[in-house]
Amino acid sequence: MTTPSTNTPLPPGSSVGILGGGQLGQMLALAGTRLGLNCHIYTNRAGSPATMAACSVTVGAYDDIGAIAQFAKTVDVVTYEFENVPAAAAKAASDVTCLRPGARALDVAQDRLTEKTFISQTAGVPVTPFFEIKTIYDVRRLCQRLDTPVVIKTRRMGYDGKGQAIIREESDIQPAFDKLAGQDLIAEQFIEFKREVSIIAARSLSGDMAAYPLTENIHKDHILHISTAPAKNDTGKAQTLAFKIMEALDYVGVMATEFFQLKDGSLLVNEIAPRVHNSGHWTQNAGCIDQFELHMRAVAGWPLGSVTPLHTVQMLNLIGEDVNVWPQLAKDPDAKIHLYGKSETRPGRKMGHVNRIIE
Amino acid sequence: MTTPSTNTPLPPGSSVGILGGGQLGQMLALAGTRLGLNCHIYTNRAGSPATMAACSVTVGAYDDIGAIAQFAKTVDVVTYEFENVPAAAAKAASDVTCLRPGARALDVAQDRLTEKTFISQTAGVPVTPFFEIKTIYDVRRLCQRLDTPVVIKTRRMGYDGKGQAIIREESDIQPAFDKLAGQDLIAEQFIEFKREVSIIAARSLSGDMAAYPLTENIHKDHILHISTAPAKNDTGKAQTLAFKIMEALDYVGVMATEFFQLKDGSLLVNEIAPRVHNSGHWTQNAGCIDQFELHMRAVAGWPLGSVTPLHTVQMLNLIGEDVNVWPQLAKDPDAKIHLYGKSETRPGRKMGHVNRIIE
Repeated sequence: MTTPSTNTPLPPGSSVGILGGGQLGQMLALAGTRLGLNCHIYTNRAGSPATMAACSVTVGAYDDIGAIAQFAKTVDVVTYEFENVPAAAAKAASDVTCLRPGARALDVAQDRLTEKTFISQTAGVPVTPFFEIKTIYDVRRLCQRLDTPVVIKTRRMGYDGKGQAIIREESDIQPAFDKLAGQDLIAEQFIEFKREVSIIAARSLSGDMAAYPLTENIHKDHILHISTAPAKNDTGKAQTLAFKIMEALDYVGVMATEFFQLKDGSLLVNEIAPRVHNSGHWTQNAGCIDQFELHMRAVAGWPLGSVTPLHTVQMLNLIGEDVNVWPQLAKDPDAKIHLYGKSETRPGRKMGHVNRIIE
Repeated sequence: MTTPSTNTPLPPGSSVGILGGGQLGQMLALAGTRLGLNCHIYTNRAGSPATMAACSVTVGAYDDIGAIAQFAKTVDVVTYEFENVPAAAAKAASDVTCLRPGARALDVAQDRLTEKTFISQTAGVPVTPFFEIKTIYDVRRLCQRLDTPVVIKTRRMGYDGKGQAIIREESDIQPAFDKLAGQDLIAEQFIEFKREVSIIAARSLSGDMAAYPLTENIHKDHILHISTAPAKNDTGKAQTLAFKIMEALDYVGVMATEFFQLKDGSLLVNEIAPRVHNSGHWTQNAGCIDQFELHMRAVAGWPLGSVTPLHTVQMLNLIGEDVNVWPQLAKDPDAKIHLYGKSETRPGRKMGHVNRIIE
């Protein structure tokens, strides 16, 4: 371990600790290795995807503060591939080395109420209408006031449609509330949007910012299905909004911002992810540096590099049994294959993705 | 380990053993991981580049037959990143699992005399004029018969200009012979060539072949300096010759063939490498699958995929202290950086390379 200085880029040979063992951690490690950075993985599961391509692996619980602190001591900077790193673990890491992005980003991204409040009030960026829910009466009152559907979500730990219930009529309220009982909740009015788009952007240690062009996303069963970028009709507005959020967070690294775009073209932030993101996987075959290298550059204090794609790329997620088409994909000269090495195929599990250059 | 069948592609989750821990092994492992293959490294040095990105690492001598056999038992196929794998080690591996490319390719590529004899006589492909040397008198006779310069090379273990001596006049003969004394030698007439070119090609398990377009190479101090591809004036002839050699070897995997191209356009093979090759690094940023994925596909029994580049790319090697320019490269939006993570910088040591899309 070299002593990090906040103003000097970490030289090749430096060590980057990555919290999380999934495919995002794996692809971060692949990109880091390409830059001569040694990537060390901390994961709660042996044999997880990131462990297949790492310099070293530590297996431990994410709330094992001692183990996290020990891990952080062995590296020059710590980053993460998932936003649910416990606050105490983030503190343990940042007490002994640099944590990038910082703990504030985790704090904001882990709680939908904090997130939407921060984005709308502190960053001044429009979000989907949201309401704090404390009791079932709050939901009943809200459904009288607002047009349904209304979506009830847990404030914490929801992703890919998990921790959500939709209320279309009054009789849905009790079952929705029962399903999510015992957790802090938020309600959001269902938005009639024209399309879902996202911005993958990064902010460097020196405050420079860069964003890939707008990505258009199609979800299926609440899971990202197809991303296409650069998306049509990119006014640059979404990039500007993402930059405002990163500035407000004093952010370092790649951040994803998901938006609903309404019929009138206006953009409302649905959520942010303080990490590389599934809707940025197309960058791997776009002819510019990919989101994983962009993130590693940012957290290592390097300049961000070029995010201007040379091609239009479409990414298709391989979810669950979808991955069984690999022999066909291997024959397809246009398919750029990315498989995560997960040994068990489960419904809804992200097993890989395919990029295709369409222009 | 699954039981390999020669006719079935190894599915994602299979294990590929790579003999050799250098940057070629590292980049093979990165490509294999992307395809969901688990890459296990056998190296004689802990901490070598390939160990930074592998599923597992075995450290042992390349002539430790027992350790090689043990390693081979744990994987579904064994390949290698250097041509000087001892014959006994290759046999030990192929006795317990598939070795791809096969032992014949190693046998031919390890000895310049066997190589040139095989290529010219068995494959019927023209090579630079060569002569077996047994005593200093053979050299003296040769220098009387041929125009100098004549190059004397060791038959085995030479690379990057090592194991060579050049004879320009009679007084060079004794020092040249002394320098290389005690080793089996070959003499080659110095060729006046217009340019050096190479072909990176692959042959699949089913005998399909594919080649990237011609690469033009510039050497500096006997080490590859710059490769540019697709090279101008590619008649397709070099690809045809490379295919003939692969067919004659019943080859599986990526093979590099280096040629001298004479003023009249004719091509003479200088040497082959039964592995991925420095002059194929440009493929990493060409918009098609790169030579590392091509090799992993071939050795895993997959279809070869598309080798048609979307861009013209120039690769610049970073040799020794060249790597110290990394902070400038990191700022250069056109530089695609590949650093190998070698901790010690030595003169003549390959530390990384930079690809630039020039068209």
